[in-house]
Amino acid sequence: MTLPSKVKIVEVGPRDGLQNEKQLVPAAVKIELIERLADAGLTAIEATSFVSPKWVPQMGDADAVLRAVLASPRRRAGAAFPVLTPNLKGFDAAVEAGASEVAIFGAASESFSQKNINCSIDESLKRFAAVVDAASALEIKVRGYVSCVVACPYEGAVDPARAAAVAQRLYEMGCYEVSLGDTIGAGTPASVQRMLAACAARVPMARLAGHYHDTYGMAIANIYASLEMGMTVFDSSIAGLGGCPYAPGAAGNLATEDLVFLLQGLGIESGVDMDKLLAAGQFIVQHLGRAPVSKAAQALLAKRSAA
Amino acid sequence: MTLPSKVKIVEVGPRDGLQNEKQLVPAAVKIELIERLADAGLTAIEATSFVSPKWVPQMGDADAVLRAVLASPRRRAGAAFPVLTPNLKGFDAAVEAGASEVAIFGAASESFSQKNINCSIDESLKRFAAVVDAASALEIKVRGYVSCVVACPYEGAVDPARAAAVAQRLYEMGCYEVSLGDTIGAGTPASVQRMLAACAARVPMARLAGHYHDTYGMAIANIYASLEMGMTVFDSSIAGLGGCPYAPGAAGNLATEDLVFLLQGLGIESGVDMDKLLAAGQFIVQHLGRAPVSKAAQALLAKRSAA
Repeated sequence: MTLPSKVKIVEVGPRDGLQNEKQLVPAAVKIELIERLADAGLTAIEATSFVSPKWVPQMGDADAVLRAVLASPRRRAGAAFPVLTPNLKGFDAAVEAGASEVAIFGAASESFSQKNINCSIDESLKRFAAVVDAASALEIKVRGYVSCVVACPYEGAVDPARAAAVAQRLYEMGCYEVSLGDTIGAGTPASVQRMLAACAARVPMARLAGHYHDTYGMAIANIYASLEMGMTVFDSSIAGLGGCPYAPGAAGNLATEDLVFLLQGLGIESGVDMDKLLAAGQFIVQHLGRAPVSKAAQALLAKRSAA
Repeated sequence: MTLPSKVKIVEVGPRDGLQNEKQLVPAAVKIELIERLADAGLTAIEATSFVSPKWVPQMGDADAVLRAVLASPRRRAGAAFPVLTPNLKGFDAAVEAGASEVAIFGAASESFSQKNINCSIDESLKRFAAVVDAASALEIKVRGYVSCVVACPYEGAVDPARAAAVAQRLYEMGCYEVSLGDTIGAGTPASVQRMLAACAARVPMARLAGHYHDTYGMAIANIYASLEMGMTVFDSSIAGLGGCPYAPGAAGNLATEDLVFLLQGLGIESGVDMDKLLAAGQFIVQHLGRAPVSKAAQALLAKRSAA
């Protein structure tokens, strides 16, 4: 089995992670976190979300955060800071703040789409198409997310064909990359590979990303199973920020530290410096007042403090 | 890739797990735990260790625990309760208590052997041979362990050929099964598959077991990579009991709940009832006063309390 030699990590902690943390994190802390993550070698960092602060108060500082990281003297050449823009209003605000990459967020499950973004999958795709058209006119890249590609918290198992159909529509609409989210972490290598096979039949594998939650401790195995199928882009969250809204107290996003530990062990290049990554994780969890939700981080830090 | 249709789980929580817990657990609690694990469908449960209570006070009640579980009216037909017997003295005591299966514990790393059991690998194998001979005369089955098959806390990476050589000697000595321990959990699918390939060239795969620690969060991926190579026996510890002596605060044994979640997802039969397994885990962690070190257990329990 030949695995890819190089993988791109899309760091989602500052947005997907912090959005699901109970504490409001000051903009200055978010900016410092993003700068540290960029300095650790991460080239794609989802910075924030341009949504109504009424619905998502955690992202109320989107404009300030994006402007600061784009202007940062610590910004590396080529580092991308995509921001979530669920509609044209959010897109316009993101453009105003200087965004050069945005993201849209759909679902493979009808119930999840209704409960999460208050509209059907079809309606959401129409709304996203308007964002993609506007972005295209400004040469702004658009990343697409599909949530619940394996299972839905309301409907249970999701047919791989449904995930593939939404992925295909996002891709054909103009998304340069489609991130496939196992939102409740219920997937195992078998269901993840079935889902990937269906998606890769509609969208080139090089344009697909794996976004696997670690709710049941399966994310690293699912990443490995995806690498075996040739996938080369994975989303993860520093220190496992975010938790699981569908099982409070359970783990959510896969920790970036665990992903980097796996890739290092497999000899796959990611460009990430583990020491700087650990320091970035420590920075944010110390602010939040807890330990990282990452076994690799905990073990590496425990070894250090023992030494 | 065809995975095995059936897997045997060797539950090591009551011995390997509790031995590494700081708290002394009363015999009655251990007995109840073992009976609950057997009732959950586990057919191989490492019950205790016949070692000097001076060195391992946690196992000072070995005789009482083994006698009780062997005599338990809740014992299922065919359930095996192997016990650790590092030398003839321990073996004799185990036989006295009624043991029908024992285990011996070697290492693939010379430094680890010296620090852990105070003798060279060669000396340990001679000592074990005496145990195997005595066991054979009484038709008692012997399981062999090899620790540090991937990496050693003192020497770093371990050559797969060294792990394979020790595994072969234990097998040829008469061990019916050789359990390959990634004692510090440093393995990833690449190093684990290299190690397995070396071992399977010397010992039939059907006689090898994977004993992977989850210190860096890699154990489930390593199990999956081992299933791909045809391995069908895995060791795990209820609720992840045990921790990691080499990185205090880090995770140790893979949690049985996580392993069963993986196997269920892959459609691989293990004979284990997840509900009863969760209850057994809750029983012991409530006694210890903490949460299970198992993401699957935490998520399943969180979902239940939310429902």
